[in-house]
Amino acid sequence: MGKITVADYIMQELVNLGITDIFGLPGDFNFDLVEAVENNKNMHWIGCTNELNAGYAADGYARVKGYGAILTTYGVGELSALNAIAGSYAESVPVIQITGVPATKHIKEKTVLHHNFEHPNYHAFENVYKNVTVATAFLDKENAKQEIDRVLSALVNEKKPVYLAIPVDVCSIEIENTPKIEFAKSDKSSLESAVSAAKTLIDKSKKPVIIADVLAERFQAKRELEEFIKKSGYPVTTLLMGKGLIDSDYEKFIGTYIGKYDNENVYNFVNASDCIISIGTIYSDLNTFGFDIKFKPQDYIQIFGTYCIIANQRYDNVLMKDMLTALSVDIPQKSIDLPERVLSFKAKTSLEDKKLSAKYIYPRIQEFLKENDIVFSETGIVKFGFAPMKLPKGVNLYNQVLWGSIGWATPAAFGAAVAAKKNRVVLVTGEGSHQLTAVEISSMMRYGLKPIVIVLNNSGYTIERVLCKNPMDSFNDIAKWNYSKLPSVFEGNVWVDSAHTEKEFDEALLQAEIEQEKNMCYIEIFADKMDLPIMTKKIVENHLVSKKS
Amino acid sequence: MGKITVADYIMQELVNLGITDIFGLPGDFNFDLVEAVENNKNMHWIGCTNELNAGYAADGYARVKGYGAILTTYGVGELSALNAIAGSYAESVPVIQITGVPATKHIKEKTVLHHNFEHPNYHAFENVYKNVTVATAFLDKENAKQEIDRVLSALVNEKKPVYLAIPVDVCSIEIENTPKIEFAKSDKSSLESAVSAAKTLIDKSKKPVIIADVLAERFQAKRELEEFIKKSGYPVTTLLMGKGLIDSDYEKFIGTYIGKYDNENVYNFVNASDCIISIGTIYSDLNTFGFDIKFKPQDYIQIFGTYCIIANQRYDNVLMKDMLTALSVDIPQKSIDLPERVLSFKAKTSLEDKKLSAKYIYPRIQEFLKENDIVFSETGIVKFGFAPMKLPKGVNLYNQVLWGSIGWATPAAFGAAVAAKKNRVVLVTGEGSHQLTAVEISSMMRYGLKPIVIVLNNSGYTIERVLCKNPMDSFNDIAKWNYSKLPSVFEGNVWVDSAHTEKEFDEALLQAEIEQEKNMCYIEIFADKMDLPIMTKKIVENHLVSKKS
Repeated sequence: MGKITVADYIMQELVNLGITDIFGLPGDFNFDLVEAVENNKNMHWIGCTNELNAGYAADGYARVKGYGAILTTYGVGELSALNAIAGSYAESVPVIQITGVPATKHIKEKTVLHHNFEHPNYHAFENVYKNVTVATAFLDKENAKQEIDRVLSALVNEKKPVYLAIPVDVCSIEIENTPKIEFAKSDKSSLESAVSAAKTLIDKSKKPVIIADVLAERFQAKRELEEFIKKSGYPVTTLLMGKGLIDSDYEKFIGTYIGKYDNENVYNFVNASDCIISIGTIYSDLNTFGFDIKFKPQDYIQIFGTYCIIANQRYDNVLMKDMLTALSVDIPQKSIDLPERVLSFKAKTSLEDKKLSAKYIYPRIQEFLKENDIVFSETGIVKFGFAPMKLPKGVNLYNQVLWGSIGWATPAAFGAAVAAKKNRVVLVTGEGSHQLTAVEISSMMRYGLKPIVIVLNNSGYTIERVLCKNPMDSFNDIAKWNYSKLPSVFEGNVWVDSAHTEKEFDEALLQAEIEQEKNMCYIEIFADKMDLPIMTKKIVENHLVSKKS
Repeated sequence: MGKITVADYIMQELVNLGITDIFGLPGDFNFDLVEAVENNKNMHWIGCTNELNAGYAADGYARVKGYGAILTTYGVGELSALNAIAGSYAESVPVIQITGVPATKHIKEKTVLHHNFEHPNYHAFENVYKNVTVATAFLDKENAKQEIDRVLSALVNEKKPVYLAIPVDVCSIEIENTPKIEFAKSDKSSLESAVSAAKTLIDKSKKPVIIADVLAERFQAKRELEEFIKKSGYPVTTLLMGKGLIDSDYEKFIGTYIGKYDNENVYNFVNASDCIISIGTIYSDLNTFGFDIKFKPQDYIQIFGTYCIIANQRYDNVLMKDMLTALSVDIPQKSIDLPERVLSFKAKTSLEDKKLSAKYIYPRIQEFLKENDIVFSETGIVKFGFAPMKLPKGVNLYNQVLWGSIGWATPAAFGAAVAAKKNRVVLVTGEGSHQLTAVEISSMMRYGLKPIVIVLNNSGYTIERVLCKNPMDSFNDIAKWNYSKLPSVFEGNVWVDSAHTEKEFDEALLQAEIEQEKNMCYIEIFADKMDLPIMTKKIVENHLVSKKS
């Protein structure tokens, strides 16, 4: 196979994983790595405005494309990206964080170079990353090849972030070009036991129901999931994080599970089931609408990425794909009455000069979306606005229901737009969240991308207003920006509009459909400080998020 | 003393340290803390555009005012601020990072709340912070009082960041209002030994010289330093981080130590000394211009914040203040010929329409500065542009020569402007650095502050261009912004100008002097991609920063 430099080997293996774009900022300890990116004809360097945004972009890219990568410099760069990588870790988004570090001799001698402490500990930042990754490696001349393979194996098998620190001098070391990324396999006997246990529950059940959630996508088991759903013919719902996984028009799709807060038919149906089959579920407060799924452990089949829990028994080394494929064979057919399907939002357009509010915004966005759109809904009030929405076929909806870091969605949508140039990318964000990372729209424009960005300006942190003691406390105000003026600061093509009324929003969206063919579209819409989507209102009223009173 | 809630106690103690403004963002796990800020009549909540910027602002505030504080929410908030706190740790800036975390019962039950991992470890983020602080505490009902006192004691004694995690329910617990912040004292015998050892070296020396550096300011020993300098009458220099510590016009001040790169008289004088007395020095690559101070350990007196090293012998528990005060008593007078003082920049103004370049920019800034200005020079090429500058009396120059995180200076200048409303704050930054955190100027405007911001636009990362293999490699380009349009996006008073020529820069500065009385001033200036201050050029040529070729 011949020899290859460490830096080139890494880029080659990333390309093999489908990573053809790497986000980051250059620094004097990562030049060799950035140059290796530029020297690899299948890979593109995507410069970002700062490292946190680069991390979010890599996360958005990985959600769409399977894997993502960020490249930073030692200390100052890598630490700025930490929150983004922690979010990827929480939500099982496989991102590799690569950092260029000072040369081996300086590490050995603890030289006080810049980007360091007075008394350097060159492993301090790797220690930081150990808390938010499934594998870290600090390369040296001897371990480089084997450590890269180990870390990339963890990335592909665990679908969570990994960290690679590479001293300047190690980048150009030559190693054998014999990639050994080891893809985990199911343990045959464990798989058989799990299948048998699951089938026992399914066989005796009268009303099985499938809950599909986001980890099915992350563990790249969407095809197997679809096959299992089709072959079983069992009714299926999704949680909020997995919304978009199932075609809304599929006859056995009963709607999104939103607890008791909307379409209670789904809630009642799921909770009356004698066999819940949950696939790739994240059991967090908000994703389960207050942990409100009343499963009985003895009737419960949980299939995760690399293990299953069935009737309280854990089966390790069982891959989701294999489990679903095995379960699909001779799956018993059941005759099950489906609950009535409730569509919360009616399609509508408006010619009225009525002040814009959530009541109109989300149904209108539902109508605006089209097949295969890639949609990002930001944390805050927006992501719950999407919960009752009926999505067109093939729409991928991305949110951060578990990690919930405000600011994530803007750069993540940028990353997704880099990953999927053929799809339309739609970002909906409150301005409170947007402010943290808004300037990444300059990167969208720089790279000629054409997402549609909808910024809901409601004068501050509305979600915080409804949760804290005094909604009008000044700490819920933010610096006032004229968002629709922001894109004109940056070079690149953009079409900008703003809307205060239903009619203006209508017109803006109609125009955006045309403009989006050639430009990024940026629409600022205005609503009242305390205007909430119905779902957010219910969540707050029901103390799903801890409210102070 | 009566009882007080945990949240109120913390705010009371911060006010006692002189922290009357706290930077941060609200979140649903820190409301009780933000409310405690608002309820304390001596404290102000300063909302920022994101947590990294809040951290930088707290750092800038602490540099000016002695201590600073940032308040964030669990996980998503605190991790975003990490790089700022690491910078404070590197450069000994005492900042307290306070984080609101979920309620104790959720911690005990490992509830999967938002801002968490699928399998929560509620101490993961405290573990992260252990790498960049001198003390961390995770409060509970039993330990709260004692842990707050311990952590604040570490802050005041070690002058480095500390971390405090406070569960929602612990905020309102009542504790005894009996503050016990323990200020460290010198160990009497260790101090006496150190003084005696130092005096022995001083007595026998013919040509002692003092190197004053930044830690003298951080350990609040400026008065004692001044007294020691005056009483001894010994020649004195500063390193780049300590530039501004000594009045430029003081007759025994020989100029800034810039290695062999400028004013070689200082270099030769220091390196010919038979007794270097260094006070509060940070020995990093760039602060020492390539570790180029040729001291002989047996002749060397090093005084740090809490210890000394004299003739290779370490003396612990010796406070800088005490050491300087003791040394000032009966300090032997010496007759020493001073080296000729070289002033590198001549004051000038220009009426020429000549294209702006470093040759003009830095001397013109030198002329522009006035007594008691607070000046921030950003990492990149700018901070070395300041190295040869003669500063007016009382000017405090702040830079990040050790940590060197690009983007730091803009929010740090914001924090300084909050801390010192009576001084003029001047920020000089390259646009490559500025882009990472530029939107924090909206906070300057929001709070009615009036700094003068000078943004040098040289079309990308100039410092990286000169360090990497091919200066024109596209990774050194950044998203193109029209910086002078940026302030108009934000609400607040601002005066904006731009300059391409010497004459235009002249005019802009003259106008800024007037405008600054009522407005923030924002001046974008343009220079060539490869235009460098002379000092930066020399540093690169001499491989002080690792250059690829």
